[in-house]
Amino acid sequence: MAMVLRRLAGASGSPSAAALLLRPALTRPISTGFREERDTFGPIRVPNDKLWGAQTQRSLQNFDIGGERERMPVPIIRAFGVLKKCAAKVNMEYGLDPTIGKAIMQAAEEVAEGKLDDHFPLVIWQTGSGTQSNMNANEVIANRAAEILGHKRGDKFVHPNDHVNRSQSSNDTFPTVMHIAAAVEINSRFIPSLEQLHKSLHSKSDEFKDIIKIGRTHTQDATPLTLGQEFSGYATQVKYGIDRIACTLPRMYQLAQGGTAVGTGLNTKKGFDVKIAAAVAEETELPFVTAENKFEALAAHDAFVESSGAVNTISASLMKIANDIRLLGSGPRCGLGELILPENEPGSSIMPGKVNPTQCEALTMVCAQQVMGNHVGVTIGGSNGHFELNVYKPMIAAGLLRSLRLLGDASVSFEKNCVRGIEANHKRISQLLHESLMLVTSLNPKIGYDNAAAVAKKAHKEGTTLKESALSLGVLTEKEFHELVVPEKMIGPSD
Amino acid sequence: MAMVLRRLAGASGSPSAAALLLRPALTRPISTGFREERDTFGPIRVPNDKLWGAQTQRSLQNFDIGGERERMPVPIIRAFGVLKKCAAKVNMEYGLDPTIGKAIMQAAEEVAEGKLDDHFPLVIWQTGSGTQSNMNANEVIANRAAEILGHKRGDKFVHPNDHVNRSQSSNDTFPTVMHIAAAVEINSRFIPSLEQLHKSLHSKSDEFKDIIKIGRTHTQDATPLTLGQEFSGYATQVKYGIDRIACTLPRMYQLAQGGTAVGTGLNTKKGFDVKIAAAVAEETELPFVTAENKFEALAAHDAFVESSGAVNTISASLMKIANDIRLLGSGPRCGLGELILPENEPGSSIMPGKVNPTQCEALTMVCAQQVMGNHVGVTIGGSNGHFELNVYKPMIAAGLLRSLRLLGDASVSFEKNCVRGIEANHKRISQLLHESLMLVTSLNPKIGYDNAAAVAKKAHKEGTTLKESALSLGVLTEKEFHELVVPEKMIGPSD
Amino acid sequence: MAMVLRRLAGASGSPSAAALLLRPALTRPISTGFREERDTFGPIRVPNDKLWGAQTQRSLQNFDIGGERERMPVPIIRAFGVLKKCAAKVNMEYGLDPTIGKAIMQAAEEVAEGKLDDHFPLVIWQTGSGTQSNMNANEVIANRAAEILGHKRGDKFVHPNDHVNRSQSSNDTFPTVMHIAAAVEINSRFIPSLEQLHKSLHSKSDEFKDIIKIGRTHTQDATPLTLGQEFSGYATQVKYGIDRIACTLPRMYQLAQGGTAVGTGLNTKKGFDVKIAAAVAEETELPFVTAENKFEALAAHDAFVESSGAVNTISASLMKIANDIRLLGSGPRCGLGELILPENEPGSSIMPGKVNPTQCEALTMVCAQQVMGNHVGVTIGGSNGHFELNVYKPMIAAGLLRSLRLLGDASVSFEKNCVRGIEANHKRISQLLHESLMLVTSLNPKIGYDNAAAVAKKAHKEGTTLKESALSLGVLTEKEFHELVVPEKMIGPSD
Amino acid sequence: MAMVLRRLAGASGSPSAAALLLRPALTRPISTGFREERDTFGPIRVPNDKLWGAQTQRSLQNFDIGGERERMPVPIIRAFGVLKKCAAKVNMEYGLDPTIGKAIMQAAEEVAEGKLDDHFPLVIWQTGSGTQSNMNANEVIANRAAEILGHKRGDKFVHPNDHVNRSQSSNDTFPTVMHIAAAVEINSRFIPSLEQLHKSLHSKSDEFKDIIKIGRTHTQDATPLTLGQEFSGYATQVKYGIDRIACTLPRMYQLAQGGTAVGTGLNTKKGFDVKIAAAVAEETELPFVTAENKFEALAAHDAFVESSGAVNTISASLMKIANDIRLLGSGPRCGLGELILPENEPGSSIMPGKVNPTQCEALTMVCAQQVMGNHVGVTIGGSNGHFELNVYKPMIAAGLLRSLRLLGDASVSFEKNCVRGIEANHKRISQLLHESLMLVTSLNPKIGYDNAAAVAKKAHKEGTTLKESALSLGVLTEKEFHELVVPEKMIGPSD
Repeated sequence: MAMVLRRLAGASGSPSAAALLLRPALTRPISTGFREERDTFGPIRVPNDKLWGAQTQRSLQNFDIGGERERMPVPIIRAFGVLKKCAAKVNMEYGLDPTIGKAIMQAAEEVAEGKLDDHFPLVIWQTGSGTQSNMNANEVIANRAAEILGHKRGDKFVHPNDHVNRSQSSNDTFPTVMHIAAAVEINSRFIPSLEQLHKSLHSKSDEFKDIIKIGRTHTQDATPLTLGQEFSGYATQVKYGIDRIACTLPRMYQLAQGGTAVGTGLNTKKGFDVKIAAAVAEETELPFVTAENKFEALAAHDAFVESSGAVNTISASLMKIANDIRLLGSGPRCGLGELILPENEPGSSIMPGKVNPTQCEALTMVCAQQVMGNHVGVTIGGSNGHFELNVYKPMIAAGLLRSLRLLGDASVSFEKNCVRGIEANHKRISQLLHESLMLVTSLNPKIGYDNAAAVAKKAHKEGTTLKESALSLGVLTEKEFHELVVPEKMIGPSD
Repeated sequence: MAMVLRRLAGASGSPSAAALLLRPALTRPISTGFREERDTFGPIRVPNDKLWGAQTQRSLQNFDIGGERERMPVPIIRAFGVLKKCAAKVNMEYGLDPTIGKAIMQAAEEVAEGKLDDHFPLVIWQTGSGTQSNMNANEVIANRAAEILGHKRGDKFVHPNDHVNRSQSSNDTFPTVMHIAAAVEINSRFIPSLEQLHKSLHSKSDEFKDIIKIGRTHTQDATPLTLGQEFSGYATQVKYGIDRIACTLPRMYQLAQGGTAVGTGLNTKKGFDVKIAAAVAEETELPFVTAENKFEALAAHDAFVESSGAVNTISASLMKIANDIRLLGSGPRCGLGELILPENEPGSSIMPGKVNPTQCEALTMVCAQQVMGNHVGVTIGGSNGHFELNVYKPMIAAGLLRSLRLLGDASVSFEKNCVRGIEANHKRISQLLHESLMLVTSLNPKIGYDNAAAVAKKAHKEGTTLKESALSLGVLTEKEFHELVVPEKMIGPSD
Repeated sequence: MAMVLRRLAGASGSPSAAALLLRPALTRPISTGFREERDTFGPIRVPNDKLWGAQTQRSLQNFDIGGERERMPVPIIRAFGVLKKCAAKVNMEYGLDPTIGKAIMQAAEEVAEGKLDDHFPLVIWQTGSGTQSNMNANEVIANRAAEILGHKRGDKFVHPNDHVNRSQSSNDTFPTVMHIAAAVEINSRFIPSLEQLHKSLHSKSDEFKDIIKIGRTHTQDATPLTLGQEFSGYATQVKYGIDRIACTLPRMYQLAQGGTAVGTGLNTKKGFDVKIAAAVAEETELPFVTAENKFEALAAHDAFVESSGAVNTISASLMKIANDIRLLGSGPRCGLGELILPENEPGSSIMPGKVNPTQCEALTMVCAQQVMGNHVGVTIGGSNGHFELNVYKPMIAAGLLRSLRLLGDASVSFEKNCVRGIEANHKRISQLLHESLMLVTSLNPKIGYDNAAAVAKKAHKEGTTLKESALSLGVLTEKEFHELVVPEKMIGPSD
Repeated sequence: MAMVLRRLAGASGSPSAAALLLRPALTRPISTGFREERDTFGPIRVPNDKLWGAQTQRSLQNFDIGGERERMPVPIIRAFGVLKKCAAKVNMEYGLDPTIGKAIMQAAEEVAEGKLDDHFPLVIWQTGSGTQSNMNANEVIANRAAEILGHKRGDKFVHPNDHVNRSQSSNDTFPTVMHIAAAVEINSRFIPSLEQLHKSLHSKSDEFKDIIKIGRTHTQDATPLTLGQEFSGYATQVKYGIDRIACTLPRMYQLAQGGTAVGTGLNTKKGFDVKIAAAVAEETELPFVTAENKFEALAAHDAFVESSGAVNTISASLMKIANDIRLLGSGPRCGLGELILPENEPGSSIMPGKVNPTQCEALTMVCAQQVMGNHVGVTIGGSNGHFELNVYKPMIAAGLLRSLRLLGDASVSFEKNCVRGIEANHKRISQLLHESLMLVTSLNPKIGYDNAAAVAKKAHKEGTTLKESALSLGVLTEKEFHELVVPEKMIGPSD
């Protein structure tokens, strides 16, 4: 090891190795200069073209972890815009100067609309309360509101704490934006994506309802079913998945806002919590309410663990479906070959003409990452709160939001580029069905399990058909065989 | 390595090392002889004093994995008793000879009552469809029913497949008993255990409602709250936990029975599925129904992944609660010391007089095992179905059932031996509260965040009280200080 | 929900439901009476026929979690025997009365040999330091040693703390027995099991070295390889697996003994730690040494997380191998059918003659449970130490030991009942090979990737052979085709 | 649910809600026009200012999953540069036209140096073999090499498959770049980060070697140790962590290159595999070798699961350390308060003057995400290979690389902004030490465990000192007490 490291340390002579080893610089925009901002720790220089203030700048310097790809998820930033707008509106009812209040509302609206995304440079891996992202929002909105009112950035005409964050604490705003962001993503992106996939699977189930095929259990030949029945199982899994995530929403709609620092609501006024939840509900058109117990809402994120559990279940469902489809579509000549999957791109850089089930692969990678990945991270984060605050908030939020985004997008991609275009390989399906030995099962009621087993085993051993075997064993007549072994009669209970 | 193994191989001279290395023999009861049983693979010898047949015996020999502790969970065995009784009852409506049917019902009842547990020797780690445990049930019940009717074990007067398993397949019976076992455990043991814990936490919340204490966020001193408020958060977590598991039951009440081999219901009669679900519902007094899509019910176990996700969430909640309680009870002299936990046993084999939060430890070990353990196993098993059958059934069932049992038991133990006896250390709580600097937060509305911060920082640096610091900075008068800094006013929003 | 629970509560009239709902009684042996034992908490009644003392009895009553199947794993009990024997031996060097010392050694030997297993009733879910199991060992050995010396149980002629536990603390003995138990299991059971599997796979690789078959990537047809090459990949995975677990042993061989309560070694003598590690090494014939840092050895169980990580990797390997084998053996008529797997038992209770890859299923269930289950539990337990002690010890120990046992046993079962008997289906393999389109890849160097792709696509589209397609496109002559497209030349690099 | 969705669907009137719900557009650079590129699927339009070709463009359109943050990790892109340079070099030895070969080497060098990062737009969630990223590299390098030689983009003067990818397949190049990228990251970033942290912890251990403090087990007061001893445990954990990851490197240094499509090496020449590994070793100055079994190297990624397991162990270690440090630093007045952590930023938006252990929080969030997150994802991906190829490659690679990056960065941040500046709170440490009851343990050898327990219990109950209690019980004299209860003598074994 030491030798390796010495060699690495001496690697500077080799340009490409050096390139590999260099830490990629955090590509920050070129500033046209700096201004001074200050917080309770004193002054600090901030790029002139940025709206953020001292605390954001400090966090940028103190948490150089992972680079730009690790920035706080965009839905959290947007949700801060919504929340701060609503807070200003409600605070005006409780005495906030309307001039300042309206300017805050306008600035917050710009955050909600995504116009100020570039002013939110902080990464997920900061303080576990998300305080620094709350202050980032407060600082950007305060500076932007000040500008709207004709003042300069950094002069605190609009104060990030006293005005923008009025009656709030990071400890209640961050969980609030977590819930807003997740609820919006679930409703606007995730569920619609699953619905699109469900509709497509359901329609395939209809399309394939008369195609009788061999069933497979333990990956071995079993009794027949229709291809439509097989797809109906997939469609049902997705339908229940939608029910599962929807079931978790009542707890996601509970907002922590109004609990302030430890859940008591210190420094807020009575009724503030209810009014702000109502304002957020109106703004987002989702049925948010104030959390019935603010101590739970700050100290735990069980609602996220729960929703993540539902997403985890859905991932398990989709992994099953995608695995089946790629195996049923395997071939073209040496696999099962019952399905023909759409060809979207060349499959191999060395094997010409190869086409692969790439959409299944992308989807199952997303599922594995989630089924096994983010959900476990969210769970462990959720279990690790201490006293009045869980300090794994940004990680928990980012974990669930990434799962929702990836699984939603992958479901849509899978539906559009794969499921929608699946065709049945009628010839292959029929050939396999009629070769199968498991049609013998329909003889059970007539000749009993033990005799039927003897028929199947003899046919398997000798490579003959079931009929040949049955007749040779003398357990029933040819006429009886033809009456009993009819795949069309084997796809449901008898009358 | 090789050397080590050679040494181990030569260890026979050392008695105690040899003892360590020997495989503990599977302690099977001494038989008074053997009889011959047979299946489609031929004859096999079975202990005379056991009711099982050829297939069970074969499985015993083919799956020597893990020893007796790895046997199929008892709730699965009992549920087989319920199911086989109901199946016989419904089969009589469809033509099963009533003499045989009634004997099956009586034998199955004995299984359901736990009288025949010793005749179910198979381990979890068998075929993934649970076929061998289904056959174990069929064989035991067939032999017992034959005896009831005056016949001999092994003569198949009552046939395990044609009579006991009539109109059934392992592929639908095993998922059915999984659902029966889980639903019964959830209703009869798990939820009542959580309710007991919830009641106790809620009552502590009441008992402690007037004790004002320092809050802690980021493990650091924060603004005050009451100890009752703190416990109300715990109580809410458990209450929501009960809601969470209850929410998953509608899908757990769906039974696969009637799907037979691949979900089509081949070899059953129309209506069989509905009747058998009704019979199980009557027998268990739980609202079971037939699954609306049998293909999903055999090929996936999303209902288990979902319920396991709820249990996972509850584990995260309990881990948080137990962690808080042990930290708040840390001491007796060098910790936080706000809570006095019951002393149940000597805590140390070397430190005399030590008492430890052992109930918190047992509970958190259970949670970790589950939060991180069984749930992941259940999820990966759930995601790995192939075609018409998921073949991780016994593992999935055993995983969830173990989680339910352990978390239920540990909750009761924690409630009975810890929560119930928790007392507040009033003196310590009061002392810490009045030393805290975070009472400064109540000055924000009066003197602003920046001034308040200066007061707190000065007091911290100089080791003085907040009042001394505030007066020395001249930001407010002594009278104002006494009016504003009142812990009793800091535990809720103001009017 | 409430209704359901009311119905359940009223279920007493229904015998079988009542049976289901009853908590299975902890079947304790019938005692012939009780004696009084005492600890620092006072007196307590203990069954006369048991050697344990007051603290064990207290734990039994305080931790009623999970029942008998949840008892501390047997390898831990045996390792306590080894350790306590060694401790007495070393303590005699430091002044322990030789009469007492020798009696302790004899009693401890009986524990190591498994003669006293019934006297260790405690469950895993107790205090997180394992103190109660250490005291169980101390009490049993003290009482047994007293009897050996002609004294009575409970009279403390041999004292559990002052004699048996002399110079020890639970905090160093429990991690020591964890390491002894795991190292012994790894060396005596786990690695030999993997070696047996490796040998069998390697021998299959040899046996199949001349069978050329179609390769599959993305589950789709690809270029050919030999069946022996395919199995060589499996054999290599298992070989590396053995390397992986062996790599972790150096840290597993470090023993905490001598650290006592917090790692300092208070109440031991200098050199005690080294001597006891040497004694354990001699007793077990494994290269144990004293841990270089006792603080780490008590406060963390990184060595277990590390070994569990190796087992996790091996599980991933075995899951891959078992999945391949069941898919390659799928059929008999509608799957890939390239392998013929041994038939060990009837596969279905409804489909006569069905044979399933049940050994693959048992193995993959074990892998899933571990890959995803125990390892995550062990990891989270390992990450949760506080200050001088990790208090997830019993769970961590039980988790890894169960993984080792199950994966070892399942590997042996898989080898013996599946791998060893696998045969190649020559006819099927040859048929698939010659139908494949991916033989086209051997044309790349001659006609280029784009032309080769055109040949394959045309053949696929028109259902013709590659040769027909190539000739019809005029990209090469029949002679060239026959020279280039030769499976035998496609299974390695060219000269 | 339906109502909610209808409301959402009607949300267009509300600007900020609309903003929230809109899918953030994939911000692609504005092109100055398009050119036509083609692959075996036909022509497709590609932005003029981009070097990529048809297959990259197709993937961009077919896998719209997750947006720009989900792009293939940069270390993979750089490693492609290294590999393709080496491949061209070796291919020239086997007959590749040197003009083309040298141009490829120059273009690949630019990729390795990061000059062409913008031309790699594909996301992780593509085909599971990484074929599309391999083609992205082939296309970019081919077009760039063509330009270097004075040809136009898209005219295939340098062919992406026949020249750049010569003797290669995605199936061997992608695992090769996975190994290069991971080995480089481990050596150049991850291990140095851990070494920096280890050095700092070790130096604190030295600095604190004479500070005696109370120990804590079960979070309860225990016998004393020095603060230096406590930190020596942390330092040892990190030191072993470095050993652990280093132990996995031998298998990471094995390169799949030369296996081509299925591991056989079809379309390569003998010796190609060894030469290319040597070239990569020279280029990176790391001891890469050719994999001894190419079938394993393509079909499994056990080496990644193994290394991820080591990182997982390290995360468990760091989580323990960070948790301890934040609890030992809790306060300032109501916590343990033994450590004074550096103050880096204001801690609260509502509580003025609050300072939080934010570096501990960032680190533990990273650990949770990894310990529980990425590792599980990598494991499940690793266990899911089928036949000759594992198709979870991009996810596995991205998972481990993200873990390495985040944990390395977070360790450096934690060291620099926290550990380095930790100070001991001497006054507080001393006060707690002398109040503790666990000093009683040093009386065991003199008065026995039971008497010592009585002393401690009496003192605890009556709130007195140990001495008062001991004298009042008459178990030893004051002189004896002063001789025995000396913290300085309690931090190691006696002579």
